[in-house]
Amino acid sequence: MDAKQLRIVVINSLVAPEGADAAAREQAERARALRIGLLEGGYNILAALPPEADLEEQIAQLQPDLIIVDAQSDTALKKVVAATADARRPIVCFTEDGDKEKMHAAIEAGVSAYVVAGLSAERVKAVLDVAMARFEVDQKLRHELSETRMKLAERKVIERAKGLLMERHQCSEDEAYRKLRRLAMDKNLKLSDVAQRMLDVADLLI
Amino acid sequence: MDAKQLRIVVINSLVAPEGADAAAREQAERARALRIGLLEGGYNILAALPPEADLEEQIAQLQPDLIIVDAQSDTALKKVVAATADARRPIVCFTEDGDKEKMHAAIEAGVSAYVVAGLSAERVKAVLDVAMARFEVDQKLRHELSETRMKLAERKVIERAKGLLMERHQCSEDEAYRKLRRLAMDKNLKLSDVAQRMLDVADLLI
Repeated sequence: MDAKQLRIVVINSLVAPEGADAAAREQAERARALRIGLLEGGYNILAALPPEADLEEQIAQLQPDLIIVDAQSDTALKKVVAATADARRPIVCFTEDGDKEKMHAAIEAGVSAYVVAGLSAERVKAVLDVAMARFEVDQKLRHELSETRMKLAERKVIERAKGLLMERHQCSEDEAYRKLRRLAMDKNLKLSDVAQRMLDVADLLI
Repeated sequence: MDAKQLRIVVINSLVAPEGADAAAREQAERARALRIGLLEGGYNILAALPPEADLEEQIAQLQPDLIIVDAQSDTALKKVVAATADARRPIVCFTEDGDKEKMHAAIEAGVSAYVVAGLSAERVKAVLDVAMARFEVDQKLRHELSETRMKLAERKVIERAKGLLMERHQCSEDEAYRKLRRLAMDKNLKLSDVAQRMLDVADLLI
């Protein structure tokens, strides 16, 4: 997808609280610069929210393609990670904080781009493009892992069901397998689903 | 590991060829700035090599902890990826080229940080730290995938060997499993290795 067509949610705070320290005022300036950069770059900003907003609710409603967290707030990032746990999305994190623990935790949680002190209007496009590519590659890997895990789990379930049938019917492995497959075809179910159902009720029937 | 203790190999070209265009001269300037940034930052540069060097050979010899590819050369990146295929290492790629295909290919090949137009001495540390964190998280995921794939493959092999034994010995699944396990214990091998050896020779023995 072209980065310009992405539906983006930006999380940052344009207003430093009254009596804020220099860091908070600087952060507010940065936030303003980022939003200007995105707007001038022609990006599609779905919403710009302060870190204190009900982010889980908002993200669930807005269903953005990409989320930019530009806030020195760990809570904001945590909320975004939680809100996207079921439907993963690329998350771009701009920060001034080079703390390695936080960095590692963010990447572990699935942040696609973690950019320390590298916010400049010209670079935003490249950062978003890299984040999208990273996200896609990452998703592919995660998908492959969950598929392989599922296959392994299914195989275990099928084997257990086969063993159960062989024991109850005093039949060969081959016969047990055929029985399972016939049932699956009759019920229009996957072999592993039939096997799972069989195991689910077996305990009740003994 | 602290980024300053990393044993780094830098691949870039300090010398623009005679009669080079403005882009090549600019690239040479950038390369010089990066090396100065790394040296001033106290980094441990194991070697700085031009993209034309025999990178596979050099990387195999030097065994660096991290490789920086700062060259507009696709060949250099390809050589580095090939040289680290068996023993993966974090690769950081600095480039001026925002081409999305190249970006995607690089990340797919396992590049830990792909930084477009973002080279400044102050940011180098943060970029290397992020790259290390990314690499670790990525390795964990890849390791999990290969473990799960292996378990699945082993299970398939064991099942096939069990089937073979049941057929030849007219025995039950349970008995076949016990035969396999006994042999594995006698030979001090993994169950799946015994199963694989059995399948390997079975065709010869028919």
